[in-house]
Amino acid sequence: MRHLIDPTDLTVEETERIVALAEDIIANRAKYRESCKGKKLATLFYEPSTRTRLSFTSAMLELGGEVIGFSDASSSSVSKGETVADTVRVIRCFADIIAMRHFKEGAPLVASQYAGIPVINAGDGSHAHPTQTLTDLLTIKREKGRFDHLTIGFCGDLKFGRTVHSLIKALSRYEGIRVMLIAPEELRLPDYMLQEMRSASKLEFREVRTMEEVMPELDILYMTRVQKERFLDEEEFDRVKDSFVLDPGKLRTARPDMIVLHPLPRVNEITREVDNDPRAAYFRQVENGKFVRMALIYTLLRWADENRPFARIPVFGEEYVVNGMTCSNPRCISATEDVDQLFRRAADGVCRCAYCEAKAR
Amino acid sequence: MRHLIDPTDLTVEETERIVALAEDIIANRAKYRESCKGKKLATLFYEPSTRTRLSFTSAMLELGGEVIGFSDASSSSVSKGETVADTVRVIRCFADIIAMRHFKEGAPLVASQYAGIPVINAGDGSHAHPTQTLTDLLTIKREKGRFDHLTIGFCGDLKFGRTVHSLIKALSRYEGIRVMLIAPEELRLPDYMLQEMRSASKLEFREVRTMEEVMPELDILYMTRVQKERFLDEEEFDRVKDSFVLDPGKLRTARPDMIVLHPLPRVNEITREVDNDPRAAYFRQVENGKFVRMALIYTLLRWADENRPFARIPVFGEEYVVNGMTCSNPRCISATEDVDQLFRRAADGVCRCAYCEAKAR
Amino acid sequence: MRHLIDPTDLTVEETERIVALAEDIIANRAKYRESCKGKKLATLFYEPSTRTRLSFTSAMLELGGEVIGFSDASSSSVSKGETVADTVRVIRCFADIIAMRHFKEGAPLVASQYAGIPVINAGDGSHAHPTQTLTDLLTIKREKGRFDHLTIGFCGDLKFGRTVHSLIKALSRYEGIRVMLIAPEELRLPDYMLQEMRSASKLEFREVRTMEEVMPELDILYMTRVQKERFLDEEEFDRVKDSFVLDPGKLRTARPDMIVLHPLPRVNEITREVDNDPRAAYFRQVENGKFVRMALIYTLLRWADENRPFARIPVFGEEYVVNGMTCSNPRCISATEDVDQLFRRAADGVCRCAYCEAKAR
Repeated sequence: MRHLIDPTDLTVEETERIVALAEDIIANRAKYRESCKGKKLATLFYEPSTRTRLSFTSAMLELGGEVIGFSDASSSSVSKGETVADTVRVIRCFADIIAMRHFKEGAPLVASQYAGIPVINAGDGSHAHPTQTLTDLLTIKREKGRFDHLTIGFCGDLKFGRTVHSLIKALSRYEGIRVMLIAPEELRLPDYMLQEMRSASKLEFREVRTMEEVMPELDILYMTRVQKERFLDEEEFDRVKDSFVLDPGKLRTARPDMIVLHPLPRVNEITREVDNDPRAAYFRQVENGKFVRMALIYTLLRWADENRPFARIPVFGEEYVVNGMTCSNPRCISATEDVDQLFRRAADGVCRCAYCEAKAR
Repeated sequence: MRHLIDPTDLTVEETERIVALAEDIIANRAKYRESCKGKKLATLFYEPSTRTRLSFTSAMLELGGEVIGFSDASSSSVSKGETVADTVRVIRCFADIIAMRHFKEGAPLVASQYAGIPVINAGDGSHAHPTQTLTDLLTIKREKGRFDHLTIGFCGDLKFGRTVHSLIKALSRYEGIRVMLIAPEELRLPDYMLQEMRSASKLEFREVRTMEEVMPELDILYMTRVQKERFLDEEEFDRVKDSFVLDPGKLRTARPDMIVLHPLPRVNEITREVDNDPRAAYFRQVENGKFVRMALIYTLLRWADENRPFARIPVFGEEYVVNGMTCSNPRCISATEDVDQLFRRAADGVCRCAYCEAKAR
Repeated sequence: MRHLIDPTDLTVEETERIVALAEDIIANRAKYRESCKGKKLATLFYEPSTRTRLSFTSAMLELGGEVIGFSDASSSSVSKGETVADTVRVIRCFADIIAMRHFKEGAPLVASQYAGIPVINAGDGSHAHPTQTLTDLLTIKREKGRFDHLTIGFCGDLKFGRTVHSLIKALSRYEGIRVMLIAPEELRLPDYMLQEMRSASKLEFREVRTMEEVMPELDILYMTRVQKERFLDEEEFDRVKDSFVLDPGKLRTARPDMIVLHPLPRVNEITREVDNDPRAAYFRQVENGKFVRMALIYTLLRWADENRPFARIPVFGEEYVVNGMTCSNPRCISATEDVDQLFRRAADGVCRCAYCEAKAR
């Protein structure tokens, strides 16, 4: 059974195939109108996320399928103390595929071990959100026509922004990628990401403190939100915040064919005046999210029929360590549910939890 | 793009056409069973309203369409600080038409400016609820056969009852309408409404303090709830409350073909014994609500295909004033979202907010 | 109009027909795929229950019908003070059949008096949950092939477990049934149930304190949860709790063809290791719940077309007493809504509330 829990669950080739299918769906809507007829998607949203839930819902409806589910934990059986494992064993009786959003990191991976039907991670805590990465990739493909030879600026909160980490990893597989990291000191990209980027021979990157320094070079500007709560020092926040707000003035030196992306919702890191600039691609990005989810649901249901094995977890090879350690992350599903403690030993010998990627203890 | 934000967005002729379409739908259900196939309605309910939400939902399903959405703000992205403008720009990627309920007055008007798809106001605070007015009109048409030469008693809270204000305005366009206003001193119709009624040469009206005085004259008795919280003086409430409760005794002098309407939910302003009286039309009214919403959704989707322009807002003619003033209503969407301050200057020179109709400051 | 409010609303023959229909649905899925096309189920869940709600939802979708509704009371009109009677008179305009979950005991019976469409009780407080009983019966039929000559152990909370009471009643109609009651002193089956069982000449039963004593004799082990809160004395709970937890060790003496049932959700009364035992039938039971609900919805909609009368309530014969007494149960719907006080006089002269079965006062 194939799932999508982490962006790396898909090979480069599979990812490109899903992006290509999304483009075919856009070009030939009628062809796919009944392609999932009789199938049901369960949207299990343990925390609310209108945008993501409705994106999955409309995707499934546009494939001719149907949708059941819940939109927050309070209207689920969680309050009765049911485990994720038991919940998905129940849901598999009612649906053919699951999209799960959970506040506990790793919950979708637990779900995938028990569901018996494909599970899509629709966001687990601050861990992973692979369909956002697919959305970003489809948008880059449609707007720029390629995945290679691109200069991308990531701006704002690069420390906690999981969509930034995932997109950097996904693009690091291609030739000629240059990454500009635009962040305040407090919100720099984590060290382990910087190390990975250094070891990726193909990738070139640079850390800067303002958008202006790199704006003329960018093919893509990926904006994220800078939250006051992330700063220890409020004065420091007030001093830097304007540097990370995009307005028409800052756009003046950008290329005419640069595009602005944002995972949304935005608060005020992009001013309203930018919305009317043709380079503002973030609302087109939302529609791409629907199309790529159509392609993903379609693909996973086909793979389930073919009984294609899930590549990552069943392979308890040399790189996996079962039990014997505990995860250090209190928000990890392994801290509250009775699951196998499962770790991946990286090349540098560090063991990271398979559910949430925090270090083992 | 045509929307329905306020009952006055429809001309008399358009309103009558929608009512006539609803009657055709009732007579020929099968004809419309697939008429919105492949279309999606988004029900964006920022505050709960089961009746209205399920009425829209069943209406769309009976037209062969599908429904996505949320039923209260806590399961939406509002909690993340997203504006109404951004939310609808996202939703337009997922749906073909929006029905919005919002606690902020004017929110659906803001939505209509950004949605790019038809927006129906499903109730915004205590401002407007135009589909209730269409429901009332269809019920009057089906029960009485006409919109003219009718004597209508409005009973209860005439001060805050938006459905009363809208229905009076809608009926004031017809010949031979007599309006009986039955309310306690505290809950009389607002002065500006009384003035408008005086200037409407065709309309005749009278203010009274008890139902009994006018009951024998009425073709229609429109009941609303009298809430204790509206009274400064609790003793005053206790003294008058029974005058505004309809029971079989008070119905004794009514015409045999009079009908009783109520926007529902009722609490105890109509006693249970009245439910079995054939003149009690308020549950038939609910079903008419579904039919008129079918007619409205059908019509707005057709108009969207024809690219019919929205009559009210795009016309920034002499009667509209943009910015320069602020709205005096703290519950107005213009107080919290970064929208154009937009006012209508009435014939008497008074400027009222285009979002909520409160006076400019 | 036929409803399912209490398991006894169905005759033995009708129950068996629904179970047989469920088996036909399982064998011939395609035959029923469109059998409720154009029909709508309203799921009115005044308290959350994901499992039951999604079971009804997927059942209706697999019959080709559609589903509207709400998943908890906070997003309904309850907060505006609307009665159950009024709510269902509204819902009947939008749907063809209702599944109601309510925290007030007897609420579905009130609903059935006003709905004008079939009402299914999806659980009312701790009173009744008849579709769970149908689920249990279908599971027994599929797993054991018969309803007679079975030895069934009920383990855990037999005092408050409504599903246990209903299943005992349902099985007491068959030959050769032996019931083993495995419960701590505090949670023994109530006296009135023991009396009924003694008077059922066909039924044999025995009370024991441990699973081990009867395990080798059992065809079916029906597990329920033992909650700490039910015990006056915490030490007593700690002393007995392990006796009511099923683990592989306790299963060792069980027959190879015994089955383990559980209404779910379980907490820890069945250990995870049992899940992989082929005798663990509780997840298969969930899927049977969907199939039996398909059969029930299908049947009630057919009966509604035939205008088949509801057997229980309309017959105000000698056993029914209207008004004159009040129900002693504060959680009964008759305590808060203005309904007819309705009682059933049993053979022993005791009057029990028709809504919740508590004694009259």
